[in-house]
Amino acid sequence: MDFRFSDSLRNMKPSEIRELLKYASTKGFISFGGGMPNPASFPMEDLRKIMEDVLSDYGSLALQYGNTVGLNDLRTEIKRLVKETENISSSESEIIVTSGSQQGLYELAKIFVNPGDTVITEEPTYIGAISAFDANLAEMHSIPIDDNGIKTDLVEAEVKKLISQNKKPKFIYIIPTFQNPTGITLSLERRKHLVEISSRYEIPLVEDNPYGELRYSGKKIASLRSLDPSGQVIYMGTFSKVMCPGLRMGYTIGPEDFIAKANLLKQALDLSSSTFSQYVAWLYLKRDIIKKQIPKTIELYRKKRDTMLTALEQHFPEGSTWSKPDGGMFLWASVDKKINTTDMLKDAVREGVAYVSGNAFSPARVQGNSMRLNFTFSGENEILTGIERLAGLIEKKLTVSPPS
Amino acid sequence: MDFRFSDSLRNMKPSEIRELLKYASTKGFISFGGGMPNPASFPMEDLRKIMEDVLSDYGSLALQYGNTVGLNDLRTEIKRLVKETENISSSESEIIVTSGSQQGLYELAKIFVNPGDTVITEEPTYIGAISAFDANLAEMHSIPIDDNGIKTDLVEAEVKKLISQNKKPKFIYIIPTFQNPTGITLSLERRKHLVEISSRYEIPLVEDNPYGELRYSGKKIASLRSLDPSGQVIYMGTFSKVMCPGLRMGYTIGPEDFIAKANLLKQALDLSSSTFSQYVAWLYLKRDIIKKQIPKTIELYRKKRDTMLTALEQHFPEGSTWSKPDGGMFLWASVDKKINTTDMLKDAVREGVAYVSGNAFSPARVQGNSMRLNFTFSGENEILTGIERLAGLIEKKLTVSPPS
Repeated sequence: MDFRFSDSLRNMKPSEIRELLKYASTKGFISFGGGMPNPASFPMEDLRKIMEDVLSDYGSLALQYGNTVGLNDLRTEIKRLVKETENISSSESEIIVTSGSQQGLYELAKIFVNPGDTVITEEPTYIGAISAFDANLAEMHSIPIDDNGIKTDLVEAEVKKLISQNKKPKFIYIIPTFQNPTGITLSLERRKHLVEISSRYEIPLVEDNPYGELRYSGKKIASLRSLDPSGQVIYMGTFSKVMCPGLRMGYTIGPEDFIAKANLLKQALDLSSSTFSQYVAWLYLKRDIIKKQIPKTIELYRKKRDTMLTALEQHFPEGSTWSKPDGGMFLWASVDKKINTTDMLKDAVREGVAYVSGNAFSPARVQGNSMRLNFTFSGENEILTGIERLAGLIEKKLTVSPPS
Repeated sequence: MDFRFSDSLRNMKPSEIRELLKYASTKGFISFGGGMPNPASFPMEDLRKIMEDVLSDYGSLALQYGNTVGLNDLRTEIKRLVKETENISSSESEIIVTSGSQQGLYELAKIFVNPGDTVITEEPTYIGAISAFDANLAEMHSIPIDDNGIKTDLVEAEVKKLISQNKKPKFIYIIPTFQNPTGITLSLERRKHLVEISSRYEIPLVEDNPYGELRYSGKKIASLRSLDPSGQVIYMGTFSKVMCPGLRMGYTIGPEDFIAKANLLKQALDLSSSTFSQYVAWLYLKRDIIKKQIPKTIELYRKKRDTMLTALEQHFPEGSTWSKPDGGMFLWASVDKKINTTDMLKDAVREGVAYVSGNAFSPARVQGNSMRLNFTFSGENEILTGIERLAGLIEKKLTVSPPS
């Protein structure tokens, strides 16, 4: 095994980590670092009822080993869900249930990548995707994003270049909607371009969509898979942000031969995902509880997003920029290039606030002055205080070493 | 990705599989094939109460993302459990929670094995271990077992040979107690020899112990890890057979540096195991419910084992042999060498009974006339009927082509 640590603590000494963890567990510490949904968004009472019913009505099945590919009834409900929410047509045989969508990412890399093979990602991209691709020794080629998402002209240029070097990418991995870490949404035009590139060069296109349902403003944009008439796009979804993460339920939709390989690999990975969790997710969909839960979560998170945007506007020093996401859980702030956000993190933690530094999300390690800020976990007062603390620290750094 | 299908259906055409599945779903069909515990062994009412309490008292934590390495309180209880049951000393930092022990097997292979590296296993061995080792392109060297378990003199000879070829094994993988698939238990003397071999040649020894608590006769034998004063043995356990499989809870105990790597890899595999399942397992241990549950399961399974042994004695043709397990879930039957149990499976299914054919468990593919019979899932009448059906089929095959 030979892969990089991909979190922002990787260069710290154990003693330093221990010191920082002590700060982080102090009362009043504010973390914008985690990728955690707010527990207030968990449908606690509904889950209590569902779990009771699962044990009463399906107990001996729900506590037993299950199919590796996933509970048939759940796959039928997932089919209905993605049709209703993302206009995705699929059949049960194109769906596999995964232990969180993280497992889908690992499977993706394990199935397509031999050591040294190339893949294309956004720059920056999801930290868990970097882990999964790293663990399978993929060579990541990351393409910059702007306010409209990944620059697809650069994707096409990179694809051509790699093909000319006999290093054709094994897949293109995209989080098109409210991207993690930036919160940015890919424009319709660029989505169409990606589908075109995928088809023209015969490179699988992978759409990871954990946040799509959490839209607070703006208009819905068609999913990549719904734009691809050939049904070749591999689509990944999760229950972590629209039910809860603790049951570890995700799914992958893709061509039947890919799903067959994913099923075979899953036998080696964990035999099957929790049968109990699958029954719970099934009833959560079947009873349409998801439909009343999502609007509540949107209400909760929209206010938090607005609070953080306002606080940034009020407190962050000139020269800083940040994304204005229409949904999801994160925004992306960049500060003066003089500041290294990985170094600054230690001071931030001592000041009582945390974020994840930009390079944790950067296959090319070019995000040294950026940070990901989660706005869904903290309370609104905490968001205000946390941004003030962070702004104060940045100002202090800039005073010591004036803006470049 | 390039690994073998490792189940006994791998050479069948889809149409053939469909036909057999039709038989298998008929009323009255008896399967000795699965590795499933009997649902009557699930602590249903206790789990109902525990789940209620988890939601009431720890809901917002239990439904949230958790530590990758596992819930601290659960690891403390696992430490207590293995001390009490297997006299294993450990600390929390030597324990990682896994999504079933299958994930532990995958991690083991991924961490130690580069493509083509050698590992040593029993011949036959657990099908899920073969999947996990295959998926990481390990070269398996399987060593025969007899009634006292793996022949450790042959293990040592193989180790020497491989070292002389500059192919030193990356680990030795053993299921010492009520082995899957044979039900055989490794003698104390040979256990000591294995620990010696592991220490002398500096090869990690891996002890997989899913069934250890399910003893129906005979005296307990010390675990490999308890026999190793250096604490280098990697020990794998699971809740699947002493609580239920559907929550997918397992654990690995090993040296801290191994656990650190397993933790890093688990970030890529699934971020964390179900937090909810972990809270349930924690209370199951903490409240000592496991201690009242195991004796019930033993009572239930002992009768089933005895029923199957009696039925084999009565019905199986001369020339057949089978193991007489002191515990666990399986026994291993071998019939006349003329009979290929993979071929015979199709006829067996048509006759209304299933097993897993020997070669599914055989890295060397030398178990063509053997089969694994599960005795825990079926009712006692089903066991009698199923063995009669199987015996009748074997007789028929031998009549067509007389014993060799």
